[in-house]
Amino acid sequence: MRLRVEADLRYWLPGPSDVLLAIEAAPTEEQTLLDDGLVVNALGPLTTVPGDDGIGRRTWLRADGEFVANYRGTFEVEREVDQLARLAVTPRHELPAAVIPYLWPSRFCQSDLFVSFVEREFRGLEGGALIAAMASWIGSHIDYTIGSSHGRTSAVDTFVARQGVCRDYAHVMAAFTRAAGIPARLVSAYAWKLEPQDFHAVVDVWLDGRWRLVDASGLAPTEGLVRIAVGRDATDISFMTVFGSAEFVAQDVRVTRLEEDASPSCGATRPDAADEKAAPSSAAPAQ
Amino acid sequence: MRLRVEADLRYWLPGPSDVLLAIEAAPTEEQTLLDDGLVVNALGPLTTVPGDDGIGRRTWLRADGEFVANYRGTFEVEREVDQLARLAVTPRHELPAAVIPYLWPSRFCQSDLFVSFVEREFRGLEGGALIAAMASWIGSHIDYTIGSSHGRTSAVDTFVARQGVCRDYAHVMAAFTRAAGIPARLVSAYAWKLEPQDFHAVVDVWLDGRWRLVDASGLAPTEGLVRIAVGRDATDISFMTVFGSAEFVAQDVRVTRLEEDASPSCGATRPDAADEKAAPSSAAPAQ
Amino acid sequence: MRLRVEADLRYWLPGPSDVLLAIEAAPTEEQTLLDDGLVVNALGPLTTVPGDDGIGRRTWLRADGEFVANYRGTFEVEREVDQLARLAVTPRHELPAAVIPYLWPSRFCQSDLFVSFVEREFRGLEGGALIAAMASWIGSHIDYTIGSSHGRTSAVDTFVARQGVCRDYAHVMAAFTRAAGIPARLVSAYAWKLEPQDFHAVVDVWLDGRWRLVDASGLAPTEGLVRIAVGRDATDISFMTVFGSAEFVAQDVRVTRLEEDASPSCGATRPDAADEKAAPSSAAPAQ
Amino acid sequence: MRLRVEADLRYWLPGPSDVLLAIEAAPTEEQTLLDDGLVVNALGPLTTVPGDDGIGRRTWLRADGEFVANYRGTFEVEREVDQLARLAVTPRHELPAAVIPYLWPSRFCQSDLFVSFVEREFRGLEGGALIAAMASWIGSHIDYTIGSSHGRTSAVDTFVARQGVCRDYAHVMAAFTRAAGIPARLVSAYAWKLEPQDFHAVVDVWLDGRWRLVDASGLAPTEGLVRIAVGRDATDISFMTVFGSAEFVAQDVRVTRLEEDASPSCGATRPDAADEKAAPSSAAPAQ
Repeated sequence: MRLRVEADLRYWLPGPSDVLLAIEAAPTEEQTLLDDGLVVNALGPLTTVPGDDGIGRRTWLRADGEFVANYRGTFEVEREVDQLARLAVTPRHELPAAVIPYLWPSRFCQSDLFVSFVEREFRGLEGGALIAAMASWIGSHIDYTIGSSHGRTSAVDTFVARQGVCRDYAHVMAAFTRAAGIPARLVSAYAWKLEPQDFHAVVDVWLDGRWRLVDASGLAPTEGLVRIAVGRDATDISFMTVFGSAEFVAQDVRVTRLEEDASPSCGATRPDAADEKAAPSSAAPAQ
Repeated sequence: MRLRVEADLRYWLPGPSDVLLAIEAAPTEEQTLLDDGLVVNALGPLTTVPGDDGIGRRTWLRADGEFVANYRGTFEVEREVDQLARLAVTPRHELPAAVIPYLWPSRFCQSDLFVSFVEREFRGLEGGALIAAMASWIGSHIDYTIGSSHGRTSAVDTFVARQGVCRDYAHVMAAFTRAAGIPARLVSAYAWKLEPQDFHAVVDVWLDGRWRLVDASGLAPTEGLVRIAVGRDATDISFMTVFGSAEFVAQDVRVTRLEEDASPSCGATRPDAADEKAAPSSAAPAQ
Repeated sequence: MRLRVEADLRYWLPGPSDVLLAIEAAPTEEQTLLDDGLVVNALGPLTTVPGDDGIGRRTWLRADGEFVANYRGTFEVEREVDQLARLAVTPRHELPAAVIPYLWPSRFCQSDLFVSFVEREFRGLEGGALIAAMASWIGSHIDYTIGSSHGRTSAVDTFVARQGVCRDYAHVMAAFTRAAGIPARLVSAYAWKLEPQDFHAVVDVWLDGRWRLVDASGLAPTEGLVRIAVGRDATDISFMTVFGSAEFVAQDVRVTRLEEDASPSCGATRPDAADEKAAPSSAAPAQ
Repeated sequence: MRLRVEADLRYWLPGPSDVLLAIEAAPTEEQTLLDDGLVVNALGPLTTVPGDDGIGRRTWLRADGEFVANYRGTFEVEREVDQLARLAVTPRHELPAAVIPYLWPSRFCQSDLFVSFVEREFRGLEGGALIAAMASWIGSHIDYTIGSSHGRTSAVDTFVARQGVCRDYAHVMAAFTRAAGIPARLVSAYAWKLEPQDFHAVVDVWLDGRWRLVDASGLAPTEGLVRIAVGRDATDISFMTVFGSAEFVAQDVRVTRLEEDASPSCGATRPDAADEKAAPSSAAPAQ
């Protein structure tokens, strides 16, 4: 399906600061970039670098005072939805080197602490059937409660509190998966039909030789996700990192399904103001 | 039943240190002191103070080098085992002042973090029925695993790890109880039939106007418990606190059921060495 | 000096809930109650119970919807300010039983974790001189930053973050003190000259046979403090506990120095509305 | 200098388990591999994968019961010791993509929590001078105390406890460095002159366009380090990961300086037993 993604960020920076953005969706095999553009008011030129695992990219810039970033992109997303239960575990010694770190616990996915729980609760299950059971358990034991967590809430916190938002579901899902010795990474994404609209966080689980998207929150259809970035946990996929302080002003994310023959209109919305810098569209290598 | 309790502690103190012992069982309405004696090798006189909530007592002493404490006591225990499910919640405004702090979270019983879990998992239950369901849940979801926890393991840690020893069961039980707005305190005890023998930790829950013993671990019959001390969590009921460093050498706890007419033999085992101090037997006020 | 204290709380309770208030200042030897009154809109009668350590009192009530509490009190405060550096440590075995629990770590004052730091940083100091050095260290190493902490911020968090508000200063002070084997408890208070006005938190340290007020934040003169409650840490001295949910609406605290012959006017401000309950003035036993 | 490194691990695995080893030193520009060999008793063939950042490699194997691994290597190490104080910060937008994740907090290096401390304590310093001051601060404020930490001890824990071993020093160093917005990663290494001999952990800091070794513990000369692996914190550089349980039996690490013309003798020590598998020597790409 063809999806139009739009993100508008507005922050106040009390002093000149380096800013690292990760809001541009990633061209990959499953999501073809038709057109996109990033417009920000920066103090100088932008620099882009590939994202983790070569997925998508990050953009460095320097800003001061009012900071505005607007991203527009059109993607053709053709993602086959996996029948998880049929997928087998990949023998660990066949894992690519770049996947191995996703076996480890991370700050917000303390998988080592869940080993006993996972063994008890999901005894007898393995591979995709295990992953499906974990996602189902999470969906039915955790309440989606806006405001119930914050930027340092971990999988342990959420498992105890039984409340969270999408990133919390994703942290618990990744922690459970790694506790079973299966690689899992966090994925930030634009999500069609997500209500209310915002950046979404889901999980990639490595099964049968490649990454498979799993959304334990069940809040948006997997086939309507447009990946932005991947990483070990929320730390890595943060959509904006400011080296200094910043105050939130406003933020708006929108994902719209387009008729297949709609002509993208991104260019037309790009402002020309001299002090705003439009990042060039560029395709990062697909995973 | 008549119970003989014996505890032998042996530690090495590299330098002179204040030591606070809480190993003497407490005379209370339910457990009548027949005779007891504490023998320690201390540097000077012992000082005793009542325990928290006036239950039992603590003994201050000063020691250096090899430290040995031997306690012997005989108690007639007549404890009616509560039918938890029939007990009602005490309205909070009727709680005695001394009971109110047992409503609060404490370091190892972070009850505030379990409020949502308790509401979800035990919905519709209240009073003693709720407490019984909690104890049952804990018994069936946590594995008794020696060595799985340490001195700073909290209820949150145990809830996640699904493993623990008696104090961990007690911490989770107290945390759940307080999360439901019902007072709970930790109790250290000698426990008949506990295997392997050691100091035991259980929970007092305030229902229907008084404290009721609950042992979520199910490791020893409640009627064979001999209380030592009470407090908010393991911090308060520690059987020995050394203000300085100490190395464990050996420790032995024994609880034996006596024929009712057996004559206690405590005095006979008391060493007479001049540098050892026998604490006088004294009855702390019953709860 | 004669101080007039006033506190106005306004909250919204979405459903009927038990509420426990601890906002009434405590009559003690050092602060003589001249008159006071608590007015709240409750669903039924109020119940009062003594506070921890017999200091002050707590008030139970039941409320629903808009909840308002207004407290007015006039106290004659005559507090000798201690010359800390001259005070000696009380031998531990002379501590009253009720003071012993204030030697222990608590949830927000994890004194056991600071033992090495305290030994290194304050080597050679003891008694009041040690306490004074600790207060001075805290004052110069932690920045008073409103908004830098929250309700579960502990002494460890503050020690690392080097930022906090009055309760954070008090937690670090109590943690350091207990790490040195000296009892410390938290004190909530009305504080003359505190800017901005709010409930204040300071510390009682047990030196030379009694509690001594220490305010590591240095935000208000000790002689102008009017104690409300005491406890192990912020958990115990919370000015309001709601068993259910509550939303903050507004809160206002004021402390004014009166001319010594000013006649208190508390009675005149007490509303007469039938559904509001005025708590009777009553003197809790002084410490 | 020419260094001979030897590591012997002995564990007991109660059941067949996947094991991931990272004990082979890494050929890099600064340390030339002369010869090496890994001998393990495994259930089948070994599989090797490159280590994180392409440094060194990991070896997968499967083992059961007694597990023994012996590694021998000879390296010519020519490392210029950096004059830290003269090195400049690399502008963040010039950081290679692979270096960016080392700006982020990780589980054991919670750099976000130290931002205020670092700003206060090291005000006015930057670049290499800042890094040198941090290393010096850590060396003088933390005591090297064997047994004072465990596998989940974090930089926050060590900063509070003021005690640790090499990995704890490295965690604090990396946390401070990242808190200042400078990339840092953990490095496992064989260390000449380390007493007692063991695997060592130090830090790479990115200054002036490349990684620079920093050892805040000061326990071994930087020029005698032989790198094994790198990663975000101790999680990534673990020398052995068992997917299942394992009991420690014995472990021995030795680093010896050879005369430059000494002929390596690794081959001669390689056992030929049929059930032991020697990993082929292979050069991982240098960093």
